Amino acid sequence: MISKAQKKYLKSLESKKQRKLTKEFIVEGTKSIKDFIKNGYIPLIVYTTQPEIWEPGIKTLKIDKKELKSISLLKNPKDSLAVFKIKPAVKPEFSHPILILDNLQDPGNLGTIIRTADWFGIKDIVCSHGTVDCYSPKVVQASMGSLAKTNINYMDLEDFLSDYPHPVYGTFLEGKNLFKEKFPDKMALIIGNEGNGIRPEIEKLVMHKITIPKHPDASAESLNAAIANAIVLSKILT
Amino acid sequence: MISKAQKKYLKSLESKKQRKLTKEFIVEGTKSIKDFIKNGYIPLIVYTTQPEIWEPGIKTLKIDKKELKSISLLKNPKDSLAVFKIKPAVKPEFSHPILILDNLQDPGNLGTIIRTADWFGIKDIVCSHGTVDCYSPKVVQASMGSLAKTNINYMDLEDFLSDYPHPVYGTFLEGKNLFKEKFPDKMALIIGNEGNGIRPEIEKLVMHKITIPKHPDASAESLNAAIANAIVLSKILT
Repeated sequence: MISKAQKKYLKSLESKKQRKLTKEFIVEGTKSIKDFIKNGYIPLIVYTTQPEIWEPGIKTLKIDKKELKSISLLKNPKDSLAVFKIKPAVKPEFSHPILILDNLQDPGNLGTIIRTADWFGIKDIVCSHGTVDCYSPKVVQASMGSLAKTNINYMDLEDFLSDYPHPVYGTFLEGKNLFKEKFPDKMALIIGNEGNGIRPEIEKLVMHKITIPKHPDASAESLNAAIANAIVLSKILT
Repeated sequence: MISKAQKKYLKSLESKKQRKLTKEFIVEGTKSIKDFIKNGYIPLIVYTTQPEIWEPGIKTLKIDKKELKSISLLKNPKDSLAVFKIKPAVKPEFSHPILILDNLQDPGNLGTIIRTADWFGIKDIVCSHGTVDCYSPKVVQASMGSLAKTNINYMDLEDFLSDYPHPVYGTFLEGKNLFKEKFPDKMALIIGNEGNGIRPEIEKLVMHKITIPKHPDASAESLNAAIANAIVLSKILT
């Protein structure tokens, strides 16, 4: 049985301000919850219709399906919803390619980008302060557990790029053909905001502008940011 | 000034049943509306805060921003909303690669897939009857005008594939490495449902199973369908 106060508290974690304050966030679904535990995140409590599936060391509270529906943000709630402690990010490692996001706004895009980056082996993502919070419930959901494995720093990108020692690539509507480029083992790739692309002050720090060539007959003016990210990462990392 | 009856009619076009009945659908935003006009779709009426931007031949009704907000499905409504007549699909052409979608469910995914396919020059998409309706408002929105340029047929895929004369590729979690394959100029690519992939009865008709290789350290179990589609099309078509 879940209390009114607990419900209220869970609701409050939808707000970024509250998450910053408490350093707590919500994860739904057994697979994703297990991904976070496996990657060193500590579950404070798991609200679950099936306490028997959780190891004895994990604090669970049995709830029924109706209660789960009342606290879940999903249309079709899964069996469990956990509150986790946010794990502080560590310094990004420069020995692998890193992904940089400049003011990404859409939580679904960010979650999908994290999931795709993980698929291709990216360990570090650096986000501008203006990028949507990676612990927002929609990001957690769209990342499908991959957030647990990814080290995400929010930084001032101008500061970060000034010190970054390897080649910096950025995706633009005009640039060198992605498919004709050779990429180094150590590099950074910048993906820009959904509507406005990479900010001019960040563009100045991009050494190599690349583009995904468009078919001459196409009417599309641009690609979705998560789609562009996937196409570029698949070329760089395989 | 928009009437109550008009509002009710626009609202009814959110339902697939009503769209099938009337063969009408809604498009929002000047760029997208112009894309449909350019591609031979006939606008029955354009509700707009700026009638002056539309050519004299086009029937417009001036509305204010508040009225637009009341009929728009967008969080941030643009300046115009048009009702179009659905253009009947023509038979797919086999001289170019075609894309086949097996029971895609998410309207955002379908819209994004149409937009990405257009970017790479795909002219024909064949959808299973179980795939979400391409004239659903969320699909139209996510396709960003590319729907206007794409010939989309809803068909029985078993029937269609039985008669299709060129190689058929499908994306699976296990298959030949996409990046090591050579693709013919005439071919079909099948993308499966978000959760279940390609149905077994369709899988039987796939001649070449391909996969997007995953990094050994990745925790992601799969890629989003629109992401997988983008990566495979970028490899096949560039």
